[in-house]
Amino acid sequence: MVGGSARVVRLAAARSQRRAGRIRAHTERVIGGWRALAAVDSPGSDVPHLRMPAPGTAGGIETSELGKLADGSGPVTVTCIDYCPDQVEIQEVGDLPEFLARHRPSWSHVRWINVDGLDRMDIIQALAEKYGLHPLAIEDIVRTHERAKAEDFPGHEDQPGRLFIVARTIDRRDGRLHSDQLSMFLGRTTLLTFQGAHPQDFAPIRQRISTPGSRLRENDASFLLYVVLDGIVDRYFPVLERYSEWLGELEEDVLERPSQATLEQIHRVKRELLTIRRAAWPLRELIGHLQRERHETLSSTAQTYLRDVHDHCVQIIDLIESYREIASSQAETYVSVVSNKTNDVMKLLTIIGTIFIPLTFLAGVYGMNMPIPENASPLAYPFFWLVCGVVATSMVVWFRRHGWL
Amino acid sequence: MVGGSARVVRLAAARSQRRAGRIRAHTERVIGGWRALAAVDSPGSDVPHLRMPAPGTAGGIETSELGKLADGSGPVTVTCIDYCPDQVEIQEVGDLPEFLARHRPSWSHVRWINVDGLDRMDIIQALAEKYGLHPLAIEDIVRTHERAKAEDFPGHEDQPGRLFIVARTIDRRDGRLHSDQLSMFLGRTTLLTFQGAHPQDFAPIRQRISTPGSRLRENDASFLLYVVLDGIVDRYFPVLERYSEWLGELEEDVLERPSQATLEQIHRVKRELLTIRRAAWPLRELIGHLQRERHETLSSTAQTYLRDVHDHCVQIIDLIESYREIASSQAETYVSVVSNKTNDVMKLLTIIGTIFIPLTFLAGVYGMNMPIPENASPLAYPFFWLVCGVVATSMVVWFRRHGWL
Amino acid sequence: MVGGSARVVRLAAARSQRRAGRIRAHTERVIGGWRALAAVDSPGSDVPHLRMPAPGTAGGIETSELGKLADGSGPVTVTCIDYCPDQVEIQEVGDLPEFLARHRPSWSHVRWINVDGLDRMDIIQALAEKYGLHPLAIEDIVRTHERAKAEDFPGHEDQPGRLFIVARTIDRRDGRLHSDQLSMFLGRTTLLTFQGAHPQDFAPIRQRISTPGSRLRENDASFLLYVVLDGIVDRYFPVLERYSEWLGELEEDVLERPSQATLEQIHRVKRELLTIRRAAWPLRELIGHLQRERHETLSSTAQTYLRDVHDHCVQIIDLIESYREIASSQAETYVSVVSNKTNDVMKLLTIIGTIFIPLTFLAGVYGMNMPIPENASPLAYPFFWLVCGVVATSMVVWFRRHGWL
Amino acid sequence: MVGGSARVVRLAAARSQRRAGRIRAHTERVIGGWRALAAVDSPGSDVPHLRMPAPGTAGGIETSELGKLADGSGPVTVTCIDYCPDQVEIQEVGDLPEFLARHRPSWSHVRWINVDGLDRMDIIQALAEKYGLHPLAIEDIVRTHERAKAEDFPGHEDQPGRLFIVARTIDRRDGRLHSDQLSMFLGRTTLLTFQGAHPQDFAPIRQRISTPGSRLRENDASFLLYVVLDGIVDRYFPVLERYSEWLGELEEDVLERPSQATLEQIHRVKRELLTIRRAAWPLRELIGHLQRERHETLSSTAQTYLRDVHDHCVQIIDLIESYREIASSQAETYVSVVSNKTNDVMKLLTIIGTIFIPLTFLAGVYGMNMPIPENASPLAYPFFWLVCGVVATSMVVWFRRHGWL
Amino acid sequence: MVGGSARVVRLAAARSQRRAGRIRAHTERVIGGWRALAAVDSPGSDVPHLRMPAPGTAGGIETSELGKLADGSGPVTVTCIDYCPDQVEIQEVGDLPEFLARHRPSWSHVRWINVDGLDRMDIIQALAEKYGLHPLAIEDIVRTHERAKAEDFPGHEDQPGRLFIVARTIDRRDGRLHSDQLSMFLGRTTLLTFQGAHPQDFAPIRQRISTPGSRLRENDASFLLYVVLDGIVDRYFPVLERYSEWLGELEEDVLERPSQATLEQIHRVKRELLTIRRAAWPLRELIGHLQRERHETLSSTAQTYLRDVHDHCVQIIDLIESYREIASSQAETYVSVVSNKTNDVMKLLTIIGTIFIPLTFLAGVYGMNMPIPENASPLAYPFFWLVCGVVATSMVVWFRRHGWL
Repeated sequence: MVGGSARVVRLAAARSQRRAGRIRAHTERVIGGWRALAAVDSPGSDVPHLRMPAPGTAGGIETSELGKLADGSGPVTVTCIDYCPDQVEIQEVGDLPEFLARHRPSWSHVRWINVDGLDRMDIIQALAEKYGLHPLAIEDIVRTHERAKAEDFPGHEDQPGRLFIVARTIDRRDGRLHSDQLSMFLGRTTLLTFQGAHPQDFAPIRQRISTPGSRLRENDASFLLYVVLDGIVDRYFPVLERYSEWLGELEEDVLERPSQATLEQIHRVKRELLTIRRAAWPLRELIGHLQRERHETLSSTAQTYLRDVHDHCVQIIDLIESYREIASSQAETYVSVVSNKTNDVMKLLTIIGTIFIPLTFLAGVYGMNMPIPENASPLAYPFFWLVCGVVATSMVVWFRRHGWL
Repeated sequence: MVGGSARVVRLAAARSQRRAGRIRAHTERVIGGWRALAAVDSPGSDVPHLRMPAPGTAGGIETSELGKLADGSGPVTVTCIDYCPDQVEIQEVGDLPEFLARHRPSWSHVRWINVDGLDRMDIIQALAEKYGLHPLAIEDIVRTHERAKAEDFPGHEDQPGRLFIVARTIDRRDGRLHSDQLSMFLGRTTLLTFQGAHPQDFAPIRQRISTPGSRLRENDASFLLYVVLDGIVDRYFPVLERYSEWLGELEEDVLERPSQATLEQIHRVKRELLTIRRAAWPLRELIGHLQRERHETLSSTAQTYLRDVHDHCVQIIDLIESYREIASSQAETYVSVVSNKTNDVMKLLTIIGTIFIPLTFLAGVYGMNMPIPENASPLAYPFFWLVCGVVATSMVVWFRRHGWL
Repeated sequence: MVGGSARVVRLAAARSQRRAGRIRAHTERVIGGWRALAAVDSPGSDVPHLRMPAPGTAGGIETSELGKLADGSGPVTVTCIDYCPDQVEIQEVGDLPEFLARHRPSWSHVRWINVDGLDRMDIIQALAEKYGLHPLAIEDIVRTHERAKAEDFPGHEDQPGRLFIVARTIDRRDGRLHSDQLSMFLGRTTLLTFQGAHPQDFAPIRQRISTPGSRLRENDASFLLYVVLDGIVDRYFPVLERYSEWLGELEEDVLERPSQATLEQIHRVKRELLTIRRAAWPLRELIGHLQRERHETLSSTAQTYLRDVHDHCVQIIDLIESYREIASSQAETYVSVVSNKTNDVMKLLTIIGTIFIPLTFLAGVYGMNMPIPENASPLAYPFFWLVCGVVATSMVVWFRRHGWL
Repeated sequence: MVGGSARVVRLAAARSQRRAGRIRAHTERVIGGWRALAAVDSPGSDVPHLRMPAPGTAGGIETSELGKLADGSGPVTVTCIDYCPDQVEIQEVGDLPEFLARHRPSWSHVRWINVDGLDRMDIIQALAEKYGLHPLAIEDIVRTHERAKAEDFPGHEDQPGRLFIVARTIDRRDGRLHSDQLSMFLGRTTLLTFQGAHPQDFAPIRQRISTPGSRLRENDASFLLYVVLDGIVDRYFPVLERYSEWLGELEEDVLERPSQATLEQIHRVKRELLTIRRAAWPLRELIGHLQRERHETLSSTAQTYLRDVHDHCVQIIDLIESYREIASSQAETYVSVVSNKTNDVMKLLTIIGTIFIPLTFLAGVYGMNMPIPENASPLAYPFFWLVCGVVATSMVVWFRRHGWL
Repeated sequence: MVGGSARVVRLAAARSQRRAGRIRAHTERVIGGWRALAAVDSPGSDVPHLRMPAPGTAGGIETSELGKLADGSGPVTVTCIDYCPDQVEIQEVGDLPEFLARHRPSWSHVRWINVDGLDRMDIIQALAEKYGLHPLAIEDIVRTHERAKAEDFPGHEDQPGRLFIVARTIDRRDGRLHSDQLSMFLGRTTLLTFQGAHPQDFAPIRQRISTPGSRLRENDASFLLYVVLDGIVDRYFPVLERYSEWLGELEEDVLERPSQATLEQIHRVKRELLTIRRAAWPLRELIGHLQRERHETLSSTAQTYLRDVHDHCVQIIDLIESYREIASSQAETYVSVVSNKTNDVMKLLTIIGTIFIPLTFLAGVYGMNMPIPENASPLAYPFFWLVCGVVATSMVVWFRRHGWL
């Protein structure tokens, strides 16, 4: 693989230039023959697509290969929190290899190492070596467009079992919907979390760890996993509420000032809701799975609490379905409103025309150059206007009575 | 969590002011750093949405934390009923702690404590402590927009098993569809029920308890649970009947006086039926679950009777599906009726125009200033009218024969 | 329950008066505080709905309560047939209590008691007492709008097991689709059947029982159940054939004389087919269940024959799906035919107008009062007509060639 | 049953006379009180329906009753083939009872008796007696509109187990889609096949039996069953190819000469594909069942080969789904093409009208009888034409630039 | 079968000549009475269809029959790769029988024989004899339009078990979507792969085998199978990206220059995506099956890595669903845009007409030949123009204010 002539799956250059404004720029980390697996899963753009490694290259990234991968330019922060019911220690790790070489304090019940940013391969490599992470899991960390999933890497003699979990967060930034990946390794006493360029805000969780006697502090690493997942799921609600407001505005627009743009927005809402559902659905399955199945790293307390997160996931999917239903009925209403408006205009215009057509004919008749007796009478003219008035009025009355006006 | 800087998920202030009339006001109970979890599950409003706690706050509410939550201002009533086949005692409880401290009468086979109103935290706390309720269940009681569900909290050595049940009622108040939550804890000899601001009317059930020899009196606490669930499910029928009538009226409107408002009402009926189905569906699952699965607190008599409630749920969902089908076909009929009406108008107007167009041309011809032989004849004028009459009549006849008029 | 203030779920009085002609009158049997559970499951009417007991009243009807229920005014017939391979005795039972008190003849292998009409509570009570029927089953008999279902009431020490079966028949009477309920109790040697005001015709079955050596005569009570169910299912076919004919007529109407009424009829067919499917689907499940599951009252011969009934149910549902598909495609064709017709009319009218418009302009030109050289020529007038003829003809030719005429 | 007053489910006489040309005539075999079960499953006709026995008649046909059924008038051929790897004997059986009385040659490993035509009841009776066929299976043979299915009639002490299989073939004859039934009984060494008026052509299979050393010759009766089923399934492909061609033609028609007839044909294709799917789907289930489940009469070699037939069934259903998808998109395209055409015509006509309307107004102005200065000038007339030309040209240019022309 | 009068399922000759340009030519290999099974699964053409053997011919191809089949004219290449962690040997095989007769080197852990091209029957026959391939599997290799599937041919005493796998690749060539078949036999130490006229490019895999120490080199034959499947699945992504770009272009077209061709392209995209899904869906099932089920030839390492391929398949199907959703919403937008455009044109034209109609009437009035007082005044003419100006202006203003202009 290393020397393979990997072909890079690119965005068609022509189009990407034409529509450069629309498409987020992605810095590309090119490594000898191998290019970074960068997700272009941009649901806010026109059409989502994935950037994949060239066909024929090997799947999985060996720990030893990590060092050969080029680093990105983004900042990377590593935070380590050790805690037990009595004690807590939060430290930002500067020199990771040195830190990992040290022994973990004996009082520490749970160690949580959080990596914000995936741009330094040596950090990922150091953790992969220390905790014996599987090559396929390493690839999934780096390639940040995996579906939410839980994978069990059972322990061998020298190494305890690990649960590898990928979750997807959603967020609206710059008027677009973004979906980021959060990768986690759960051991018996350790939780590793990896996040990309737009990390979740873990401050509330840290604060709860700092609070003596909090439920989080009393429990094990899998309870910490529950808390992280709970945070991810709860962050779906404010995003969904944005769509709730958007739909409310569209509802007004559809009824009061429908335009082609309104319809396009409705379609966009539907599409983005679909994207959210596609993120939420595997998340629900993942959490349902964690809550049901036994695993050596999951405590029964955490599983009881995961039931609660599962309920939230179900509510999220319920909400999405409601919103999609509403958007669909708005699209139908739009079509009906627009066609009603056009029909009303056309009907009125045609009625105006229809009222004048017989009158014009009448005027034409008395403009004929043949001997017309009426033309001799001086009363003809006012009488003509009278007839016109009567005809027009009776037509208007008739149209009114039939509800056409 | 307690000191956490929880962010409140708010309705966008701008919009809520603009559309203040449409949206129900919600009093907010703000508690130091933590805001009450209030459901804004208003299916009658434009777009449903949920108010959730800030992401990152802890799930579940510890008994000890309850005391720190601020109370609401609504009235709270606690009623306790003890009964056995021979005896019954109904009391409104003023001083709950004192009441709970007293021993329960030895003759009491079933104790039913009903709390109407969730605005006094000390009451919930007292019951939670007395009956050892789980923090997650307490949160679900207070946060009143859970889906219907049954959760088993198995007993430990010192504490018997509990079944925690959330059911959803539906109701139409003020021209809107509302869905309220009823939370229940079932023990072997005890039933706790918690209701919000719009409690179910339990008078008929109390009357049946008061009647000596009634089936309810002879049976255990799980039979009482069945009776409460039966009441909830039966209350769906009158609400559905309202939709039946509404659809009947809409059917007339669609055929006789279709307007944009008719279509909007049809869409609204569909959406509200969807909301009801979303309430009824988990209820059906919940009752199907209770009826099938064995649990230490459920007697086989109660399970036999729950089959009956389950049948009702299935009928409710059948009815909803029928109504949705009818609403859909009404929407289709609406489109067809409106387009037919417009087409008929346009066709008639165009026909009128078409009849006069050749006549106007004829009048124009004889208005030309060139030497026209016919213009010399004194019979030309009556003859002209004759020709006009013949042309118009034959066109009308032709249109008639082709079914255009 | 007995003294409960049961609220009656009524048809909205206002509407029912307005549309009195459309809605079948239902005699209401009012019993002190309790009103009869009468199904208003009228699929032929505008919108189906159910009449339910007031929420909060007890479910199930105790045998002892039956006597307190008011009787209806319809005729009730009780027929009892005893048979074994050698002997048969058919009797109409006048005095049921006396009849039930007598011992059953020892030669009787199967006893079939059929009750036509549910208006005499004492009869139901007598049978319920004699055969120990469950209160919930009694309620289901009286409340005649249950879904098809099979319920197992297992035997106790003193009482053998019972299978309680509810089946739904369909029928077209007075131009409406009706669905009636047939309730059955199957014991080892006994079959009880209860029917409402429109009983099935059991004459062919009685005749088969009367025929010595018939397969029915040789077999047990569950075979009799099979024969009754077979009759119910076979009666779906002639009803479905009516829809087949109806759709055939609609097909002609859609193509030859489409009108708004045609579309409404198509929608009605679709809705009624849905109603039939809703009756047939649980029937299929019920029979599939009976055919598969072992039960002490079901012989293996009956189960083998029930496979045949199950096949028929599957064919019925297949037919319904075909008809619904046809109705849907007819609705699409209707829309297309109507819009084609309108378009053709409009096109022709517009073409007529378009032909005359330039001619009228021409006539207008020569009617101008300015000095026009052509007007001086005596040939102008015939030449004008020539020009008009050429213009009109060439336009017609052009429209023809483009396929617009 | 025999003397029962069975009511015959008839096609409505009135309609069948009106549309006599469309509906295939069905000779009716009337037997005292019992009428033959003749399938009118004519998918090519307007609406499919089934002819069923009168409700209340017995299900199943006893062997002894067969003799009482009236014979039809069609020819019936019975062919018997005995073979083993070394020897083969093919004979047309004239006198079936005599033939069945004779012992089967001891060298015969497999005996295949094929009956083409169901019009002689004595033949069916003779086979039913010889091979102990179940009354329900006999009924299914005679009533030729069963769904494809496999039924296991387990053996008793004196009689080995039988597998009863119903398969459905499809065929296009006389421009219509027909679906015929092939009924089979499989024993350990015997295969009975029954076909109706339009039998499958078994010549290729007979030829393969005649070929020494062929795989078919070496194997047992269940392999013969596989070969017959393989032939049935393979015959679906040429029929489907007809639809492939038809859709190709429709695609041209839709784009080049769309008419109401095109749309009706598309709907017909969709409906007929649905009919084929309804035949193919149970066939797939049947073969999947045979391939998976163990049965005493099925050899494992036959089951391995049935996997191949199962694959073909899956491909058939895939193809049907593709064709239905194509037909649906053609229907959408049709609507779009037709509406585009109409719109283009209307637009052009309206543009013509719009160009002349101001010109006509201008001509009217100069035809007024008031003192108009321009009318005095001798240049007025040419100037008028100039103005008209300028106005018309600029309008055409403007319409062109906006893409309306 | 060999001498059977097999009927060939042909493309209707008439049409194929008419549309010769559209349909790929297929060379037909006719063998005495048996014609080659050539897939005409051309998803890019108008309507897909399959070419099947004549009904009644035998399924499966015996090894001995292969020699009788006619060869095609295409080139056939056989490549054999032997490798173990230490050593690798890649050779192109010229004389296959001689090669197969030789013993395999003892150091070889994995032997991979790849056949590119299916046109030489002797090669397939030699391999089939050497490795004891099943007749049905041989048929599936030659008949190249099988669905993706995995079949287990369990081992007998003298022959180890084999896994037979069919996978489908997709590719866009010559502006069309093509789907080719790759057939594989997996033994414990051997992998046979067969490809048709458009083989996959295996160079990257060969390079990885050549690289000492690569993961592929260290593992067994089932890991090689994983690598091949991984390559096939990864090749779906660039094809899908083409559709992503295509949809992007269509999105522009729909909004800016919608035409009938745009709609046809959207339908084509939808149909081709359906074809891809139909290829991808069984592939996902196949890989899910391989990953889950135990088989003697599959190592647990390969199964762990297959999870990764399975994830990719799920993502592919997710993408396809997204694209189909987008295409559907584009089709809806197209209809809306086109109808909006037409409506705007018609509205403007009708407004122009409506403005002139009253003016024309007015001109007609003053052209009447009756004594009209106004006509006497010299101010009449300028006043007339003034009135016309006022009427026209006020109409324009009125239309503007109502948003019609």
